Amino acid sequence: MSKFEERTIHRKTIFEGRIIDLYLDEVSLPNGKTSSREIIKHPGAVAVIAITEEEKILLVEQYRKALERTLIEIPAGKLEKGEDPRESAKRELMEETGYTCENLEHITSFYTSPGFANELVHIYQATGLKQERELQLDEDEFVSVMEVTYDEALNLVKEQKIFDAKTMYAVQYWQMLKQQEK
Amino acid sequence: MSKFEERTIHRKTIFEGRIIDLYLDEVSLPNGKTSSREIIKHPGAVAVIAITEEEKILLVEQYRKALERTLIEIPAGKLEKGEDPRESAKRELMEETGYTCENLEHITSFYTSPGFANELVHIYQATGLKQERELQLDEDEFVSVMEVTYDEALNLVKEQKIFDAKTMYAVQYWQMLKQQEK
Repeated sequence: MSKFEERTIHRKTIFEGRIIDLYLDEVSLPNGKTSSREIIKHPGAVAVIAITEEEKILLVEQYRKALERTLIEIPAGKLEKGEDPRESAKRELMEETGYTCENLEHITSFYTSPGFANELVHIYQATGLKQERELQLDEDEFVSVMEVTYDEALNLVKEQKIFDAKTMYAVQYWQMLKQQEK
Repeated sequence: MSKFEERTIHRKTIFEGRIIDLYLDEVSLPNGKTSSREIIKHPGAVAVIAITEEEKILLVEQYRKALERTLIEIPAGKLEKGEDPRESAKRELMEETGYTCENLEHITSFYTSPGFANELVHIYQATGLKQERELQLDEDEFVSVMEVTYDEALNLVKEQKIFDAKTMYAVQYWQMLKQQEK
């Protein structure tokens, strides 16, 4: 047991949704006092860094209701129940960009918001990219695919159109790859 | 108006908490159909990359109830209402590590989970670090401060003890700084 462990005294289910569930935990702290914790459960997600042979990265623009604006992000999506993250990454790449890949390498995984949510994102790098066919989208998914150079990606960061953790990580990863090439 | 905009038909407040609120939005999609969106509102957060003159980064280990485990993260905390992010970063650095800094540079900001939450994290780099005094913690905050070298940080990533977006970003940022020094 961790020295910091917060023991659950009581869990109240507030909401069970299509994507997230919300729980309110009453916890016992290491000092014996009690507190409450607001907890979001999320199935997890995958995201794909896909840089073409022309040195362009595949990005998708989509509306994010939580922000009331569009963002430009690397292709990503939530894990389906029981789905292998690698298969999910291939599926999302295909569905959102119309591209397949020959190789898919796991780069890293991270929790996006450990303070309140258990969402874990698995990041892959896809190489050997090939445009297979037109887009296949979920019924309520509206995205626009872009292929941008490294400098264009930096500009999108500056303009705050690229503005989310996984895509910022991807741009930084790309920057590192370029520095290593030098 | 964005071509992808999802117009709110109806918003239902499911939960208003200490840290997060949950809303269920019924939206009108660009194709005229309707769908629902589960939305978390969060006040935003700050995080600090603090590397000492001995080339060690300040990290804090704390229990994350959403994950039922501890994580090792860069010092961070949520924004208080109306608080300036820069002041918040100084405050969290002091509270969680006992260090003050001479300089605080804004590195980047990003949304952590744009698919369902509006949490925006502002990342700062602190330099001119000075250990001022013992820790000052909130009543229900139990953290343990660490100072680790770059190689130790990489090991913590490998061991999945460093395992969240902002800290992974910070380690990659440090890696980039080191490459640029060469």
